[in-house]
Amino acid sequence: MPSELHTKAADPANGCSRLPPSTFKMAVCQFKIGTEKKQNLDRAREFIHRAAGSGARLVALPEMFICPYVARLFPNYAESCAGGDSFLMLARAAREENIFLVGGSVPERDGEQVFNASFIFDPLGNLIAHHRKVHLFDVDLPGGLSFRESATLSPGSTATVVATPLCTIGVAICFDVRFPALFREMTLKGAQVVVIPAAFNMITGPAHWELLLRARAVDNQVYVVGAAPARDPGADYVAFGHSMVVSPWAEIIARAGPEEAVIVADIDLERLARVRRELPLGKRC
Amino acid sequence: MPSELHTKAADPANGCSRLPPSTFKMAVCQFKIGTEKKQNLDRAREFIHRAAGSGARLVALPEMFICPYVARLFPNYAESCAGGDSFLMLARAAREENIFLVGGSVPERDGEQVFNASFIFDPLGNLIAHHRKVHLFDVDLPGGLSFRESATLSPGSTATVVATPLCTIGVAICFDVRFPALFREMTLKGAQVVVIPAAFNMITGPAHWELLLRARAVDNQVYVVGAAPARDPGADYVAFGHSMVVSPWAEIIARAGPEEAVIVADIDLERLARVRRELPLGKRC
Repeated sequence: MPSELHTKAADPANGCSRLPPSTFKMAVCQFKIGTEKKQNLDRAREFIHRAAGSGARLVALPEMFICPYVARLFPNYAESCAGGDSFLMLARAAREENIFLVGGSVPERDGEQVFNASFIFDPLGNLIAHHRKVHLFDVDLPGGLSFRESATLSPGSTATVVATPLCTIGVAICFDVRFPALFREMTLKGAQVVVIPAAFNMITGPAHWELLLRARAVDNQVYVVGAAPARDPGADYVAFGHSMVVSPWAEIIARAGPEEAVIVADIDLERLARVRRELPLGKRC
Repeated sequence: MPSELHTKAADPANGCSRLPPSTFKMAVCQFKIGTEKKQNLDRAREFIHRAAGSGARLVALPEMFICPYVARLFPNYAESCAGGDSFLMLARAAREENIFLVGGSVPERDGEQVFNASFIFDPLGNLIAHHRKVHLFDVDLPGGLSFRESATLSPGSTATVVATPLCTIGVAICFDVRFPALFREMTLKGAQVVVIPAAFNMITGPAHWELLLRARAVDNQVYVVGAAPARDPGADYVAFGHSMVVSPWAEIIARAGPEEAVIVADIDLERLARVRRELPLGKRC
């Protein structure tokens, strides 16, 4: 079924009423990620079900939700786009729960290369977009935390935006959030809700996570959704948690702590339009 | 004397030791602005003296520091670049206090046009840079606050960056802070400290002032300095105050309240270089 799912064209009427609502619920799944892919997939599926049960029409998962966030391990967990267990679970979950699903990210194998990639599905289980992290996380942070995504990953090169009957969704991954030009490009392509699967750590998280999500929201007058793993103090890489939804006026309208949670927020596209009307930025960028 | 001052070329050795320090003090003057130009100039001069007395080598003033922040009044207060009372006061103050001075902004007349313009001086009183606000403030905010700078002002078109022996200074004015591309351009031109004379109000101030200053700092790994008027609840346009200096790691290292104040911060260019080394962003923008 995966190839069949994959080759269907996105149909803007899928799973939605004829008149798109100006307000809908969305949810972020924040869960712990371990070393067993199967367990991670099961945990994700369970959280997607909880999120859909809250009434969410759009659901987001965290970055690298099937494996530890450890660069040398990414190739071991990598899957091809349409054939992998993660892809199948996500497509099926979107269809079974009747939701739009931003499937966090997974290591995606394409020939010799591996990408940090997000698959986005509509409520029929069609893949409607696919983002490869553009800006890889290569840092030497104070306190000795170094990371080299580029040791095992290749970068994407494209801003990802997809129009759906709910809203136009942009997707960026983690370190991408530090690059305003990518977000400007998504906004000019129509993005209204930008979902960012991410895994900030215990240095950059307290310093910059909330700031960057709110900055991208206020700069572009979009909803910004940060989807993070829950914190696991025993992991090699300790995620900050604190998944968050930010309004186009930069208010935090939903926020998790460090623990596992499903957070839910109302996305109001009329509010978004009003902010852009009251404080016009778009034409002058 | 003004034309003589104006025509002197900027000399990188002016007023500085041969080996530029990696750390120096800077100060922001936050004072109330009234309707009398002469009184505003005297108040500014007094605050510059206090700022220099704190040991600051670089001093910043607020936006439109010689007149009320009321668009229809700007032409009444406008001065030509080199000939006006404000220009003369600023040039002389920089020389007398032996400081680099970002002279807030004033309405600048150039033929038929008026600009919201900042004059920047070295410690010999030479004009070394001149920024004209690029993004004019035309808004209809919730609560009935409307503003139309474009009714009386023309926009500038250029990112302003000037190398000095202290550091490389970028200058933007108020609403410019909402446009990341302008800051990226300044950063690529070498800016290390970006000074933003500004006058946020009681709606945008609480919502976005701190956020935007910290965002521009973290995006570009520069020091960002917001220089605001003190709050005057009786004014036509009530300024938010809260002048602030933000580090390249987005920490607030000096901050005023709403009242008159001189705030002082240490600018540490080695810290700036370390942040850029630890979390490299520049080459991938």
